[in-house]
Amino acid sequence: MDFKRRVEEKSVKAWEIYIPNLSVDCVVFGFHDAKLKVLVIKLKDKEVWQLPGSYVLKTENLNEAANRILFERTGASNIYLQQFKVFSDLSRNQGLFDEFSDDIWNKQRFITVGFYALVDFSQVNLVQDEFSEVCEWKSLDELPELMMDHRDILDSALVTLRRQLNYKPIGYNLLPEKFTMPELQKLYEVLLDKKLNRGNFYRKILRYDILEKLHEIRKGGAHKAPDLYRFDVAKYELALKNGLNEGW
Amino acid sequence: MDFKRRVEEKSVKAWEIYIPNLSVDCVVFGFHDAKLKVLVIKLKDKEVWQLPGSYVLKTENLNEAANRILFERTGASNIYLQQFKVFSDLSRNQGLFDEFSDDIWNKQRFITVGFYALVDFSQVNLVQDEFSEVCEWKSLDELPELMMDHRDILDSALVTLRRQLNYKPIGYNLLPEKFTMPELQKLYEVLLDKKLNRGNFYRKILRYDILEKLHEIRKGGAHKAPDLYRFDVAKYELALKNGLNEGW
Repeated sequence: MDFKRRVEEKSVKAWEIYIPNLSVDCVVFGFHDAKLKVLVIKLKDKEVWQLPGSYVLKTENLNEAANRILFERTGASNIYLQQFKVFSDLSRNQGLFDEFSDDIWNKQRFITVGFYALVDFSQVNLVQDEFSEVCEWKSLDELPELMMDHRDILDSALVTLRRQLNYKPIGYNLLPEKFTMPELQKLYEVLLDKKLNRGNFYRKILRYDILEKLHEIRKGGAHKAPDLYRFDVAKYELALKNGLNEGW
Repeated sequence: MDFKRRVEEKSVKAWEIYIPNLSVDCVVFGFHDAKLKVLVIKLKDKEVWQLPGSYVLKTENLNEAANRILFERTGASNIYLQQFKVFSDLSRNQGLFDEFSDDIWNKQRFITVGFYALVDFSQVNLVQDEFSEVCEWKSLDELPELMMDHRDILDSALVTLRRQLNYKPIGYNLLPEKFTMPELQKLYEVLLDKKLNRGNFYRKILRYDILEKLHEIRKGGAHKAPDLYRFDVAKYELALKNGLNEGW
């Protein structure tokens, strides 16, 4: 069945089961090899890359929709997605599906709710779905052009993630259980995309009071063996809930 | 014309001009007499209080909708509204409009986008509209019960506002041009709803580097005259854009 026929058939069903004019797009960040990566998919039959996204069933709330969509489109589950912004420009999908009649589902105006997550790269097992040809992690510096306003959505998620560093702890599940200060600093530098002063980073992160210094050092390596730390899980959870020590 | 007839007539028009299943609700905070207040309206003919809200025209984006709605429902304009969260529970408006047939606009499921603003209380001139009986500022401790999930929406806006204190400057337009440190501290205490340690507050707010100490003191009063400050507008604007000094 060709693309046009398939879209037309899906359209009839879509009008029945989904909330009109509303969609969800997911920005899933992973940290791997000291690089920030994002999950993107390529449409079958088209050289078009996009964020994993779809529509909202009449019978589900937005969180349920986001998690279902991410699973259906990428095979990834158990990811804690947070909504961060709604994108509602009238021209979002203008020009797409021009060859179809005006009552086709995909040709409608869509207001999309952006969700994002920062996940443990190694915990995500990608499974292909019937639509996607390629579903993969791309680091930000090798990202293909994305369709519609998906690059804006991604950039906006990144701003939200960086802002979050000011009031939420981060790193648990992204680093090995025991890590060195330079490794933790590297995570922050990658997320912020800038170099941080070593002394300032140490002072600030210690003031947060979420780390436990271990009576161990990293073995091997040519340099002076660095101290090992791990997150104090109870304090980390408390900071997730109440905000960082640093806050007001 | 009675309430039921009016709702039915408005329903026909609503299906024509609005995006279905989508609404906007606005949480507008004001600071007055050292109290945090919020703008609420009471429906005509009903003892029901709610946040100013309505629907999204097919021809506008969400920001345009929020500003139009706030103006139409309260008469307040020139308010910088920011979207903060979407509320999508399936039971949001269950039980309302039960006496109407199922195709009535108001009886549909609505996913609502919450907007909030923190405004200069004295700059807002309230004008009544045809629907609202009372539109007024209420301080949080004298707030009437709100319909549907509007109290949740308000509380969620408050969490967002408090979080914002960790990465954005606040206070310009809320305080007189020249103010004392105790006055600025009071603003933060009201927004956070907790007492702050004087010494810590001074150190932290000065580290932000957004204040200019004036070579003046507040005249009159029995106590030692306190120093006056004002915001360094250039630095304040920069901090609004780039985040506070305190950030990473």
